[in-house]
Parts: sequence; structure tokens; C-alpha cells
Amino acid sequence: MSSEFGKNVKVSIFGESHGSAIGAVIEGFPAGFEINMAELLLFMARRSPGKAGTTPRNESDAPKFLSGVKDNIICGTPICAVIENNDTRSGDYDSLKFLPRPSHADFCAFVKYSGYADMRGGGHFSGRLTAPLCAAGGIAKQILEKQGIYIAAHLSSVGEITDSSFDAVSVTEKELKMKLENKPFPVIDDEKGREMKVLIEKKREELDSVGGTVECFAVGLPAGLGAPMFDGVESRLAAVLFGIPAVKGVEFGSGFAGARISGSENNDGFISRNGSIATETNNHGGILGGITTGMPLVFKTAFKPTPSIARKQKTVDLYTGESKPLEIKGRHDPCVAVRAVPVVEAAAALVILDLLS
Amino acid sequence: MSSEFGKNVKVSIFGESHGSAIGAVIEGFPAGFEINMAELLLFMARRSPGKAGTTPRNESDAPKFLSGVKDNIICGTPICAVIENNDTRSGDYDSLKFLPRPSHADFCAFVKYSGYADMRGGGHFSGRLTAPLCAAGGIAKQILEKQGIYIAAHLSSVGEITDSSFDAVSVTEKELKMKLENKPFPVIDDEKGREMKVLIEKKREELDSVGGTVECFAVGLPAGLGAPMFDGVESRLAAVLFGIPAVKGVEFGSGFAGARISGSENNDGFISRNGSIATETNNHGGILGGITTGMPLVFKTAFKPTPSIARKQKTVDLYTGESKPLEIKGRHDPCVAVRAVPVVEAAAALVILDLLS
Amino acid sequence: MSSEFGKNVKVSIFGESHGSAIGAVIEGFPAGFEINMAELLLFMARRSPGKAGTTPRNESDAPKFLSGVKDNIICGTPICAVIENNDTRSGDYDSLKFLPRPSHADFCAFVKYSGYADMRGGGHFSGRLTAPLCAAGGIAKQILEKQGIYIAAHLSSVGEITDSSFDAVSVTEKELKMKLENKPFPVIDDEKGREMKVLIEKKREELDSVGGTVECFAVGLPAGLGAPMFDGVESRLAAVLFGIPAVKGVEFGSGFAGARISGSENNDGFISRNGSIATETNNHGGILGGITTGMPLVFKTAFKPTPSIARKQKTVDLYTGESKPLEIKGRHDPCVAVRAVPVVEAAAALVILDLLS
Amino acid sequence: MSSEFGKNVKVSIFGESHGSAIGAVIEGFPAGFEINMAELLLFMARRSPGKAGTTPRNESDAPKFLSGVKDNIICGTPICAVIENNDTRSGDYDSLKFLPRPSHADFCAFVKYSGYADMRGGGHFSGRLTAPLCAAGGIAKQILEKQGIYIAAHLSSVGEITDSSFDAVSVTEKELKMKLENKPFPVIDDEKGREMKVLIEKKREELDSVGGTVECFAVGLPAGLGAPMFDGVESRLAAVLFGIPAVKGVEFGSGFAGARISGSENNDGFISRNGSIATETNNHGGILGGITTGMPLVFKTAFKPTPSIARKQKTVDLYTGESKPLEIKGRHDPCVAVRAVPVVEAAAALVILDLLS
Repeated sequence: MSSEFGKNVKVSIFGESHGSAIGAVIEGFPAGFEINMAELLLFMARRSPGKAGTTPRNESDAPKFLSGVKDNIICGTPICAVIENNDTRSGDYDSLKFLPRPSHADFCAFVKYSGYADMRGGGHFSGRLTAPLCAAGGIAKQILEKQGIYIAAHLSSVGEITDSSFDAVSVTEKELKMKLENKPFPVIDDEKGREMKVLIEKKREELDSVGGTVECFAVGLPAGLGAPMFDGVESRLAAVLFGIPAVKGVEFGSGFAGARISGSENNDGFISRNGSIATETNNHGGILGGITTGMPLVFKTAFKPTPSIARKQKTVDLYTGESKPLEIKGRHDPCVAVRAVPVVEAAAALVILDLLS
Repeated sequence: MSSEFGKNVKVSIFGESHGSAIGAVIEGFPAGFEINMAELLLFMARRSPGKAGTTPRNESDAPKFLSGVKDNIICGTPICAVIENNDTRSGDYDSLKFLPRPSHADFCAFVKYSGYADMRGGGHFSGRLTAPLCAAGGIAKQILEKQGIYIAAHLSSVGEITDSSFDAVSVTEKELKMKLENKPFPVIDDEKGREMKVLIEKKREELDSVGGTVECFAVGLPAGLGAPMFDGVESRLAAVLFGIPAVKGVEFGSGFAGARISGSENNDGFISRNGSIATETNNHGGILGGITTGMPLVFKTAFKPTPSIARKQKTVDLYTGESKPLEIKGRHDPCVAVRAVPVVEAAAALVILDLLS
Repeated sequence: MSSEFGKNVKVSIFGESHGSAIGAVIEGFPAGFEINMAELLLFMARRSPGKAGTTPRNESDAPKFLSGVKDNIICGTPICAVIENNDTRSGDYDSLKFLPRPSHADFCAFVKYSGYADMRGGGHFSGRLTAPLCAAGGIAKQILEKQGIYIAAHLSSVGEITDSSFDAVSVTEKELKMKLENKPFPVIDDEKGREMKVLIEKKREELDSVGGTVECFAVGLPAGLGAPMFDGVESRLAAVLFGIPAVKGVEFGSGFAGARISGSENNDGFISRNGSIATETNNHGGILGGITTGMPLVFKTAFKPTPSIARKQKTVDLYTGESKPLEIKGRHDPCVAVRAVPVVEAAAALVILDLLS
Repeated sequence: MSSEFGKNVKVSIFGESHGSAIGAVIEGFPAGFEINMAELLLFMARRSPGKAGTTPRNESDAPKFLSGVKDNIICGTPICAVIENNDTRSGDYDSLKFLPRPSHADFCAFVKYSGYADMRGGGHFSGRLTAPLCAAGGIAKQILEKQGIYIAAHLSSVGEITDSSFDAVSVTEKELKMKLENKPFPVIDDEKGREMKVLIEKKREELDSVGGTVECFAVGLPAGLGAPMFDGVESRLAAVLFGIPAVKGVEFGSGFAGARISGSENNDGFISRNGSIATETNNHGGILGGITTGMPLVFKTAFKPTPSIARKQKTVDLYTGESKPLEIKGRHDPCVAVRAVPVVEAAAALVILDLLS
């Protein structure tokens, strides 16, 4: 089925952007774990609108746990977390019912669901559906951190502006925290962050948007996690990452750059480091043959530019078949990648916890 | 589990490179379909060794159908296709048992399987395991072609040398066939192909290897295939593509390049074309919100350089923990991407047939 | 995972008996179908407490649809149906935390969830969790009825008292409706029903309970549904039926009785009937080799006696390890099979709709 | 899909009765385990034809391991076990192609596979397909036995003749072995066994067949295995057991008999026994709420009489639609339950190993 992933830790997402509520059902979290709710809300706030460079829609995305959590402690049975939809202005979308927005899922949903999907605000395809993913992933992050596994992502690029990165061999939890934890704009190099914000603001003023990439690190993973072929760590992660709205590319380690170089440059020789077997470089991004090597997991996700732009665009009336100009109103982030940073962390945390369970 | 994918069309791969046989169990192919065996062997020959730019290991990879096929006609019950392993020289690998080859799965498999996996020739992680994938995918391609869906891939780059491409809006089955069908070296621009072959030969002489990319097109897809979020076409394809050995990146449509541009450049306006709704450009690669738009499906896969290179490399003896120099003997393709072209087609065909079933 | 089933139609149940709410996430119902809400509530009322022979706990089990349904029309995206828990008296259970009730899941849950499960009122193991199953199944029944498939079950026995049955060859939708539709006590033979009610009342007065069986019929099924071996109709149905609390046995057609007779008695010869191929008798219960024959589907489910009885029983304090006498207070049905009749129909409807999807 | 089951231990069965080979692909067995091949063949021989009361078809059902096993040691990667089909007399079935045998899957398969299934000898629906299940399950039994879990089944009834049973509370591995291990006719009470054999022989002489039941015990299981609702131990076991040809009923513990009695009779009080929590009686068959209690697992499976009987029966020509008399030739067991005893053990072993993995 569609809006679900996972094997031992399973997440099923439901809801539409302008329906009464969205949420997730989660199975497989360990009974007895105490959720740090303040930390979870802080994590979820990182993807909330209303921050610099993001849309002014005001939401309190605090999840309400209908089941599976009692006094903040995980019971072991299925968890249902619900986030209510408030502050939606559906009027903004009424005129769009038969006018599919370019590079949005409207047209595809119309065909697949014969016109019956509730597509106000993007419906089930909205970026808003990443809120329950973050609720689930934020808990998974806490569980993993107790096991010595730490995950952090940053906005590695906006348009042509590129953030600096970490050393994929030596990066540590401490360094990730020092450079990224609770940062309002999640970049390593704040000067680059300022440039990115300027570019995003410029795009907003031009009634345009811009793409970006998110790079994610996971440290503390044991070697041997995953499986060969189609159920490997890369396959599992990619399937979930491509489920995040606007993702159009995923690469691990040297990725596409590795396809341009030689084996002698790309290969990662094995060495002994602190009594363990490690690799001298980390072009493999922590995974070989679908299985972790124990080196930091490193991957990058490409987000297309926000398709909702206020400029005049071309569309076709699905009812009459006539070509129509389209001007999208409503509030939209000019760069979805900004708010996607915790979403990528959430996805990674859930997949890794699943592999460990 | 690991070596399996699919929902309505399901493929399970088994075997080790130097075991007695490899193969696949396939469920969900339509009863009554007559397999064109000559065409299937021709398709499988495209990934076989012994061609220009590939390893001289000589194999007859003709699959033997133990079940599910009678007189070349699909019965409907599970198909088991077996390919025998001949011409293996396991002696080449004996000395490597405790010396993991850089950027191979040896070390990961050692940890995961406590040293018990049969890793001769890469074992279950070998590129050879793509032969049964091609047997399954070659049949899927035939089934799809009968339904007006055609899939073709080409070697879009080797190192820094880039093949030309098709127009992602107007590309047709006819054009794909004219430019690529049964080509010994699967590029659109033969001049670029010659350069690639020269580069590959150079890398072989330098005891080195080189990466490459494979771009794949599928035309004739209806709109509305797929599903939102984690079971979308991109999620499904990516999970299988990352299961192909040496794949480290997957992107759809404008992919990572799309993350560097503006929405006004990347958005694909809707227009009427021949009475249907289409898009003016195809930066979305035929998929929006996990669902097909009816435009050509376009995606690119990054293959790392062949990790087996004859140069001296660093490794660690897993038994003694000592650092050791490593020289890999045996026969290896300097560029795995060349033989991977039909493998990518096979993966795409199986995923698409599954979505249609 | 645990509380989920289905492939093309998928149902995931969440909630605890005394938590804030219980519910279900459902995928795969057809977009555009209009739910008859009055009929759904009527269906769900059949499993509600407060009827003759059942517990006086008063609940309004009307489901609230958080997503996937708009103006009673199915959208196509995941449906979340929530039923609030009111009128719970958790105080009844406080003293039981470390005293597992005989033949309840308390002890098993304690071990599996290390004591963290919220087991008030049976928690996630409570019969109350069949309410969302009925919400989902009631809709499935409506969808199937539009396709000419009708499902009805009756209380085939309580203790040693046995209801009459239908002719498994000739039974029709009309007959099923005439004899069973909207009956407050779902038996074919009302005289037997009166005897059953007397027995149940007697058991209640004796502070005891009694077991029963539910027989279910589905008519209008096409031949050819299902699959061989482990994904056959019987396998699918049995997996869901054994997920209903208190079910300890499932049989199809002649079932256990068929194991006591000869092939010449049990075999169902093929004949032509109204231009179709049919069987003369229906000991196979409508399924051969895991696949429907087109004959009525017939199966029976055994429900154990309600384990909550007010008599003094033996238990062990999980904290101290001491033997303790146990007297269960609270309100309990003396015969769970009565309210289970629509639950069995719901399970059957969901499995059949899945097979047809 | 159809012929597959399992989550962490997964088994996929392929093959047709009169094709070139049948087999299984198995994932999830622990790397490093050494298979006792002699013991495995002994186990498989228990379901082989040629024993008292069974068909004279002579097969050497020794599995050949194409992958995943090296020098009898499990590698960890997918195992493919193949059993060749010899000594098939397809001529026996040629005349039956359009004449579906009563109570066989022929008609259903004809509809589902549009007449393309290879149904000679029952094709993929044949009892012969339980041979690879036994190959997989025989290994699982060995793995479990090393962990202190022992599984044994017996022929609990043939027609109206009933074997004695074990005490479901106190039964031990030692007792199971003493009474059942390697018995040519797997009953506890040999006198009853003699009566059963007489009855089976009588049925054969009458050109008839007879049904039977198989009761299975598993001892040494820890408490806490399984899950609530639809993925419980009963759901998992039932799904696999109903995948065994001819199974029409499954019950756990007191099962259908429990549905006839009172809660005060059926409830199993908790007591301390040897420092552990146990139940005084075992009407629950070792499972409550889908989860093991640590008491012996006890379940019974109903097998219908062999549908292939030599008496004249009624059928309909699928080609002409005309009614036809049918006389089945070929060699058939008059009571499939006899050979099914190890098959039930195999199914149980695979499900339990999966739950433990």
C-alpha cells in the first residue's frame, strides 16, 4: 500500500492538508521507553512554518497520542499520534479544483482517484504530511541516541550556494551537535546560511522558488546492519526518502560524483583504527553491499524548487480541456529543502531503528 | 527479507557467484503469455561478459525453467529460473577469505554472516546475481511491449565523458529502438561511445577502473500509476535500483540538477497535446507525487567504479587484525556501468509490470 | 507487525480499551464510493454492548473520520476512523495490574511488553478493538453488496445448543437477508435463540460464561479468487479470524466433520447449473486449493467462553510470585460469540474485498 | 503473493507435480548452523510415499542445495533447495485436462490461470509440493531443537478412530520422542494405529478414501512470543497450515470443544510451577491473545479425505460444458493425513523459528 513503510518498526501516515487531522500509526517502538516530549516538540518545531525563510502559516503541531503511549511512556502496542489541522484557508484552493498546478500531484491524483481525492492544500500529497513523520522520527531519534546512534542533517545547498560539510571519516556526535543542534537555519557555515537566506528571499520577491539539497549523517552505527540486494540499507532509506514530497534524487557517499572518477580514487582501503576495522576514506557512505560498515552513514537528498510559485503558469482545465493561465495564491515556502532537514533526519532515524529492531 | 522485491509481481533472487547455480523465483506474470526465448537470450546476452569493454569470463547464461513455464508459455504458478555456474575459477579467491577487498561487500558480509557466507567471487553480492534479474526483467519487458510500454536505457556517461540524450518530452518507442536496440555498446552517440571505450581500455591498462551512469526511459505509461508517499513509483524503483550492485545514486527527471535551479525553470506547465493533458517540459521525469503523469519516465542511476582493481590496495586481515597489502587477481570489468544497462531496464520493467498488475 | 492485515485493502487497528480512543487506518477502498452512514452505524450497533445477553456498558461507537472520507464519499487516500472511549471505569482494573486473569492475555502482554502495556480493560487485547474492525468491515460490506456479494453470519451454537443452518448449495442473498438481517439476536431458528438466551442468562447468574460458534456465508463470489498454498482464501481468512479475541478454531465447509468421513461422502461432484459449472454438494465450503469455486463460501469460527467470570479463580501475583485468589469485577458478556457475529462478517468482508481489489 | 510465507524466516515454494523439479527458496536461517543431512533425509522420508498406508509412487526426495548451503553449513544468504521430479506418469492425467476432478483444485486453477496452469498430477496444487516445505521445516526443526524447542505431531484420528493424546500440561520432549520419534506409523497408541491401517486398507479396497486429523505439540517455547491481533501465533500458524493441501480446519487448545463448555471449565488458572508462572490446565493450547504463555503449544488440523478416489464421480467437460462421468486412475493415498504428520511439524517449526528470529 502507499503511505506506509517499515518491517519491525512500521509507520503508516494518514491525513489531508485541509482535513480535520493528520497523523501516524507506529508499531515496533520499544515498550518502556520514556519520550522526552519537550525535546520532541523542539524537533518538530524545526519543520514548522513561521521560521526565517518559511511560510507564515501558524500551526501548533503538537501531536496528541490516542494510543500506545501512557504518561509519556511507550506501551509497546500500536501508537496513534494525531495532529489537528487548524488555521487552514481552504478558500485559497477552491478555484483550483480542476486546474492542476504545474509540478504538483494534483493531476496525477485526479487521474488515480477519479477526482474524489480531497486535494485542498495538496491533500494527502502535501508537505504537511511530513509532520506526523517527524513525530514518529523524533521519537526514533531519541531511542537511537540512547543506543549511541546520532543523526543530523544540514541544508547542504540552496540553488548554487553550497554549505561546507563534515569529514565523512572522522565526524562525531559531538561535532554534529556543536555545529547543528537546534540551529534555526540548519547549516554548518553560517556565512553560507546568510547567503542562502538572501537568495531565498530574493526568489520570494521574484514570485519564484529555488531547489536545495539536504545532507544527512548518522554516526555510531554498528557494522553488519542491512541485507544484500533489494532490502539493503540504501534501498530501505531511498524508498522512504523518495516518499518525502519534492525529493527527486538520493545518493550515498560519493554518489553521482563517484561515477565520474576512477576506482583508485573512489575505493576505500581498510585499516585498523582504535582496534576496529575501518576505512581510510568514506566514499562508500557507510554502506557496502547494502550493509553498514560501521563508518558514518552519509547520504544526500535533492529537493526540487517549491512548485507553488506566484508567477503566471500554464495549466489545462480538467473539466473543459481548455488551456488556462494559472496564478497560485496562498502561502508557500520558496525553498522546501529548509524545512525538510528534520524530515530527512526523521526518515533516517525510523529506517535505522527498524534495521536495529 | 533481503533478495526479494515486488507486490503483485514478485522476484526473489538466490545464488552465489561460485556456487552450483543462481536463479530467481518469480510470481505474478500473466498466465498464457508466450515467452520469446530467442529474444530473451539476446536481452540477457547484453549483460553477459565477453563483449567489448567487459570481462572475458565465458558463460552461457541461458536460464532453465524448473517450473511455471511449459512449452515457453507462462503457467501462472511460481516460475523458477535457474542459471548454472560454469567457468568459475574459485582458486582466484581462496587467498582472499580473510582479506576484505576495498569497496566490496566482503567485510560487511563477514560481520553479518559471522564468516559463513560463501564469498568466492563476491558470493551473493556479485554482479553475477543480476543475470537472473535480467531473466525475469527480460520477460517483463516482452509483456510490457505487448501492452505498448517500451523501456530502453543507455550508458549516459563513463567518467567525465557524457553521451547525448533524448528529448524527455517527445521521445518515442521508435526513436529508442532506432538509436539503441541491440547495440553492442549502448550509447546514442557512437562517437562518444568510442571515447568511452578508449577510456575504459586505458583504465584497464592502468590497472584501474572508472564509474558511469545509466539513463533509462520508459514510454507508453498511462497516467495514474503508483501511489502517494512511500510506495510511489520513485520509491519502488529506487529500492530495486539500489539493490543492483555498485549503484550509489538515483535521480528522476531533473534530479540533482533541479535542486540547483528555480521553480520557474523547473516547473512543467500543463498543456493539451493530441487531445491529452501533457506537460510542456519534463523535468519531473514522468512522476509527480509518486504517480505517473503519462509523460515519459526518465531516471538516471550512478554506478561507482568497479571496486576490483589490480593495483595494490590496503586491507586488514580479519583473522589476525594486521594491515595487509592486497592485489586483486581475476577478471574484472573496468566499468560495471556498461553491462548494467540491461540490468537497469530489467529492474524498471519488473517494477512497472508490478504497478500495472 | 501485529495489528494489521491485508494487501490491496489494508487495515491497521490501534488503541487500548481504556485509552482516549481506538481506531483504524484503512487503505485501498475505492475512491468515489459513498458510505451509507446510517447503515454503517446500524451494522456497528450489532456488536455494541447493551443488547439482550450482552454487557450494559454504554458506548456510542460512532466512528469519526479524520481523513480519507469527505461528505461521506471515499477519497482514495488513507482513511483514519477514530472511536472515542467514554464510560470506562478503569478503577475496576486497578487492583489487577499484577494479577493476570486466567485465559486473558494479561500475563502474555506483561512478558512481551515488560509490564508497560496499558492493560486496563484488556488494553489492546480487548474485544472493544473489534469496533474499528467493524467500522472498516461495515464499509467493505457495503462496497461488496454493490458488486453483488453478500455476507451474513449467525450464532450457530451457544454451549450445546445449535442453531439450524442454510443449505450451503442453494443459499441466496435473499434468504440470508430474510432470516438474519438486523435481527437483535442473530439466529436462524428463533426458538433455538430463546434457548440460547436462557442458557446465557443462567451462566450469568452462576457467575459463569459459555462458548459459542459463529457460522458465516458469503454468496455471489466469482470463481477464481485467491491463490495456491499460503496466500489462499482460507489462509487469508483464518489469519484475520484468529486475530479476533477469543477465537480458538476455524473450519471451512465440512471442516473437522469432513475429517471423520469418506471421500465418497465428502467429495463434491461437478455439475452444470443454470449454464455455469457448480458442485452438487458444498462440503468444500466454496474453496478448493485456496481458490474460490463460485459456490457459497461457508466457514465456522469457535469462540471460547468469556474468560472474565465472577467466580473465584486462581492466579499468581507477578510482582511477588505468590499464589492469589482472584475475583473479577466489572461488566462482562457471558458469551462473547453473540456480539462477535458482525465482527466475523466484517473480517470476511475485508478479506474478500482485498481479494477482489 | 501466493506460495510464500514468513517474515524473518521466509519460505517460497515453487514447482509443479510433473514438471522438471520442485523446490523452495528460504531466507533467514542462521549462518553457521550445520545441517544434519542424514536426519533431514530421515525426516523427509516420513512424508515420502511407499510406506504402509500410502501410495507406491517411488521418489528420492533428497533436496539438492543450489545456494546458501556449503559443506552442509548454512551461509546466511538465500537457500535454494531443489527436488527433482522422477517417476512421474503424466499419461495418467492427460485425459483429465478438461475434466476437473471433484474436490480438487483443477476447476479453480482452470479459471484463475485461464487454462494455462500445468495441472498434471495436481500441478502446483499437488501434495507433492509439501516435500520442499518439509526440506525447509526439517532444517528449522533441527535449529529449534538446539535451542531446546521440540515439535512432534501424531495422527490423532482417521475417520472415527481416535489416537490417545498427551497431557497438554506436562508433556515433555522426552515423552514426545519416546512415543513418536521415527515411528513408521505416527500414533501414540499402536493398537489404535493398527485399527487405522485396517480402515485405510478397507477404504482403498472400496475405491474410497478417508479423512483424518493431525495433532501437534511444541514444547520448550518461551512466554511472550507472538503479537496481538492479526499477527498472533494462531494467525501465523493457521495461515501456513491452511496452505497445506487438504486442510479444512485448524483449532488451538480446546478449540471447537471449548466453544461447547463453560468459562469455569475452560479457564486455565495461573499457578507457580518450579519457580515459573504456569497454568493449571492448558485449554488455551499455549497461546493467549496471540502470544505464547510458555505452556506447551497444542493445535489440531483437519484433513479432508483424499479427493482422488477410483469410484465413478460426476464432472463437467470444461471445453464442451457437458456432464461426464469420471474415473480417476493413478496412485493415491487413501488418507492424506498419514503423510501430512511431518508436514504439520515442518509448518510449525518454520513459523516458530520465524517468531524467534
